[in-house]
Amino acid sequence: MAADGSNQYPARVFLRDVTLRDGLQSEEILVSVADKTSLIEKILAAGIRELEVTSFVSPKRVPAMADAEELWKALPEIEGVRYSALVLSQKGLDRAIHAGVEEVGVFVSASEAHSRRNSGQGIEEALREALKMIRLARQAGMRVRAGVMNAFGCHLEAGPIPVEKVLGLAEALHREGPEEMVLADTSGIGNPRQVFESISGCRQSLNCCRLSLHLHNASGWAFANLLAALQAGVDTFDVTLGGLGGCPFLPGAAGNLSEEVVVRFLESLGIETGIHLPSLLLASGSLEELLGRPLPVRCSGGPP
Amino acid sequence: MAADGSNQYPARVFLRDVTLRDGLQSEEILVSVADKTSLIEKILAAGIRELEVTSFVSPKRVPAMADAEELWKALPEIEGVRYSALVLSQKGLDRAIHAGVEEVGVFVSASEAHSRRNSGQGIEEALREALKMIRLARQAGMRVRAGVMNAFGCHLEAGPIPVEKVLGLAEALHREGPEEMVLADTSGIGNPRQVFESISGCRQSLNCCRLSLHLHNASGWAFANLLAALQAGVDTFDVTLGGLGGCPFLPGAAGNLSEEVVVRFLESLGIETGIHLPSLLLASGSLEELLGRPLPVRCSGGPP
Repeated sequence: MAADGSNQYPARVFLRDVTLRDGLQSEEILVSVADKTSLIEKILAAGIRELEVTSFVSPKRVPAMADAEELWKALPEIEGVRYSALVLSQKGLDRAIHAGVEEVGVFVSASEAHSRRNSGQGIEEALREALKMIRLARQAGMRVRAGVMNAFGCHLEAGPIPVEKVLGLAEALHREGPEEMVLADTSGIGNPRQVFESISGCRQSLNCCRLSLHLHNASGWAFANLLAALQAGVDTFDVTLGGLGGCPFLPGAAGNLSEEVVVRFLESLGIETGIHLPSLLLASGSLEELLGRPLPVRCSGGPP
Repeated sequence: MAADGSNQYPARVFLRDVTLRDGLQSEEILVSVADKTSLIEKILAAGIRELEVTSFVSPKRVPAMADAEELWKALPEIEGVRYSALVLSQKGLDRAIHAGVEEVGVFVSASEAHSRRNSGQGIEEALREALKMIRLARQAGMRVRAGVMNAFGCHLEAGPIPVEKVLGLAEALHREGPEEMVLADTSGIGNPRQVFESISGCRQSLNCCRLSLHLHNASGWAFANLLAALQAGVDTFDVTLGGLGGCPFLPGAAGNLSEEVVVRFLESLGIETGIHLPSLLLASGSLEELLGRPLPVRCSGGPP
């Protein structure tokens, strides 16, 4: 057997379900709060313990998230389960604080063009805003996940994002003391070399901070990026049922990591996930019924 | 930047196009020899220099390959281009020798159930046959690729294939002196750990022999296996246009590595392929016209 470092993976991996947020945000079909909580219950029944369930964003921009406050009130309270929400602006953060949200995600984009399209601000201004939001969120007693979107490249810009740029943004965010840092391949454009180098760099400079990865499969090789991240020591990944989702403000970026396939992949590597796949497939089936169509990635219950 | 071995890849990778064989073998539409040679010309124009173009197999079992002799006569003769054919039996080898084939692929399955279904023989008997075929092929002056099918697992059997079993078969085949050894994930069921360990094992015991990998994407994580193989030092992979194909005698095994996505993936890693992607996309377009439907994996000409 090989004793090379490239064949070493974490023994346990944590999956954060972001179906309710990243999966549903681009959907034209509006899922009711009752149906959302019912879906959450099914996801929890499969063993998932972290969920990003909504974003506090303008209902005009993202109608599917207009029910953020109402959903938050209706979330099933279960010991050990952590819910979070994405906030994109000071106004969104205020709403989240008012709604009693306990954990927020605050992101800046490493792509100037994407930053302007997503937030109306250039990177520098968006970073100042994000730092302020992290401070305010922490003052309000929230847990904070801070992250860099388009950390590896952007469909709106030519060429890859330099690792140094990502590390610079991550370090700036990290100084405000978030509980977790996230690198997001929002465009699904990164390669395993970038993922490995960026993660390794972050692990060195952001010592003792939990580090997670948000991958999209637009290019078709997200599982190679997932493998590189495992090799760099990442043990937390965002996933959605059936790979549903993508950034609504970015052309060509589609498909999250499929939760079911990730579970099967990690199981094949002998990595513990705490997820019961047959229960997860019941959740996927419910989501297909809600949407009235098959999910982008389907995973049978049989052998892989 | 990380200096870990897991971030090291070969500088140059060779892609063998197996569209005409593995891509077309399950198709009900019979493509004419003229259309096949026209497609081959387009694939060659993209820079591909190795192609597996047919298999000498019973026309009753695989009607799409019934024109093997006729196709072989019509192949474009171009300096530096190598064509090969798959042979599954002594009878097929005789036909290939008679047709003037210069390179053959000879395979045994590491799965007893698959071996019986594919060849009507158990592994031991099939191995004896394969060894005899390699000897005869070499006596006839042919180059030989010898390989192990279902090297990582099989849909027809429970559990993974032990690495030792694969190495045992590979060593037996290798003793007959083939120019190249192939490990095939026929069921698309392998994981990166198995791929890395099997390849590393083969590289140690099959010294000085070219080693290549044939991956299927049935599980959805073939690019993680591709990455693991690159990390183990493999520099030759079988691919098909649009990922067309799959073994016709194995349920649930579908989808080869998409040639276009592999080229883009390797380019993103700075690995040289010698392939001109826009020309390859022209070949894919032609194949879609021949089949009258989109290929399983589509790759735009724009940024990834």
